[in-house]
Amino acid sequence: MTGWLAIAGLGPGDTALVTPEVTAALVDATDVIGYIPYVARVAPRDGLTLHPSDNRVELDRATHALQLAAEGHRVVVVSSGDPGVFAMAAAVFEALEAGPPPWRDLDIRVLPGITAMLAASARAGAPLGHDFCAINLSDNLKPWPLIERRVRLAAEADFAIAFYNPRSKARPNALIRVFEILRETCRDDRPVLFARAVSTPEEALRIVALPAARAEMADMRTMIIIGSSLTRIIERPAGPILYTPRSAP
Amino acid sequence: MTGWLAIAGLGPGDTALVTPEVTAALVDATDVIGYIPYVARVAPRDGLTLHPSDNRVELDRATHALQLAAEGHRVVVVSSGDPGVFAMAAAVFEALEAGPPPWRDLDIRVLPGITAMLAASARAGAPLGHDFCAINLSDNLKPWPLIERRVRLAAEADFAIAFYNPRSKARPNALIRVFEILRETCRDDRPVLFARAVSTPEEALRIVALPAARAEMADMRTMIIIGSSLTRIIERPAGPILYTPRSAP
Repeated sequence: MTGWLAIAGLGPGDTALVTPEVTAALVDATDVIGYIPYVARVAPRDGLTLHPSDNRVELDRATHALQLAAEGHRVVVVSSGDPGVFAMAAAVFEALEAGPPPWRDLDIRVLPGITAMLAASARAGAPLGHDFCAINLSDNLKPWPLIERRVRLAAEADFAIAFYNPRSKARPNALIRVFEILRETCRDDRPVLFARAVSTPEEALRIVALPAARAEMADMRTMIIIGSSLTRIIERPAGPILYTPRSAP
Repeated sequence: MTGWLAIAGLGPGDTALVTPEVTAALVDATDVIGYIPYVARVAPRDGLTLHPSDNRVELDRATHALQLAAEGHRVVVVSSGDPGVFAMAAAVFEALEAGPPPWRDLDIRVLPGITAMLAASARAGAPLGHDFCAINLSDNLKPWPLIERRVRLAAEADFAIAFYNPRSKARPNALIRVFEILRETCRDDRPVLFARAVSTPEEALRIVALPAARAEMADMRTMIIIGSSLTRIIERPAGPILYTPRSAP
């Protein structure tokens, strides 16, 4: 039996946003590995072993996946969103680089998915319609001063900014500090999108002006997008549309 | 008949990367509108009118789509990749904002897709595995000095950088200038990914070090990703893997 490893993105939650490529990989798989709530999105069936694991053990999980593939299993590592954006693909390649040389002969593929910022942007309109950046606000794996520096430079460049992992219990003050930095740098009326659990039954969207933005408006399932200086709101009966025009003066 | 408008992303090319949500919208549509090569990706059928149009008429196309939806048609505007990333969603909202107020009652949805940088990143490994930004190098709709400024600040922030529209016949020197700026700012060994037509039969990937990067390595179907200072290459018999680790020192 020839093993392989696919690192797949399940998208933001709705099965209508899972690509056929990912669905096909899951059909062929013998093993699915990932964080508990993502593995729970894969239907059990005969011949498929599910390996759910807890948060913060990404490197162990990646090593386990590579070991199984090297033993001949057909392994899918699942991430929410896209596996290449603050997710499992980088962890698998860290484990591959540190692991035994024969692992470099393995058949490894990354299967892209709809990452959270694209799902949130689509639901709100098109806030990422012009140049933008994506910053992970978790300081588990990078120093906080680097995050502050990137937020300042991104605001100076007038990017729209998508913030991943804006808030957790371990970091109650990070988002407060980010909003402070943005208020120092940006115009007052910059819109802020809080997009929670997009495409799931718990979906909730909220748009506020930067001065009214509060850390409590986000939780671990929230994606935040800050508009650039050109981002606009179209008011409608069905709710506002947030978008960044294609042109800059 | 109640009309609606869906602004849909067809992904980078392979039908296995089109979401079921987009496929379902195309099944229900009466009209498909878009740039010629993207409309050509939709199979003709009875009851469906295809409206291919040329490049650079995005606002006319958007207005036409809104008019048809207002007349009761079920309209899908198709973009390559994701419609919210340098594509048709922002153009539709510009036309909506400038158009007659009743258009604001229309049922309008944006259906996300796999944008070019995620497809390119997946094929190469995970170069966007840490903080990153996306910059459109076309100066059709923004002044060139703004592009230079953003490239400098993005390099200063040590983002991985995805460049959309890196090259066209009308702008032979833009990419040359961008590589000059990056060589001034970045370490010499920064890897540069040229990813052409990912997921199509014409797919071609090439990774070179920044000093060896040449504008001629890109064309209109190429996506360029510049690594951050931490981006690494794993050499393998089947070809190199490019990835950015999750941790920054």
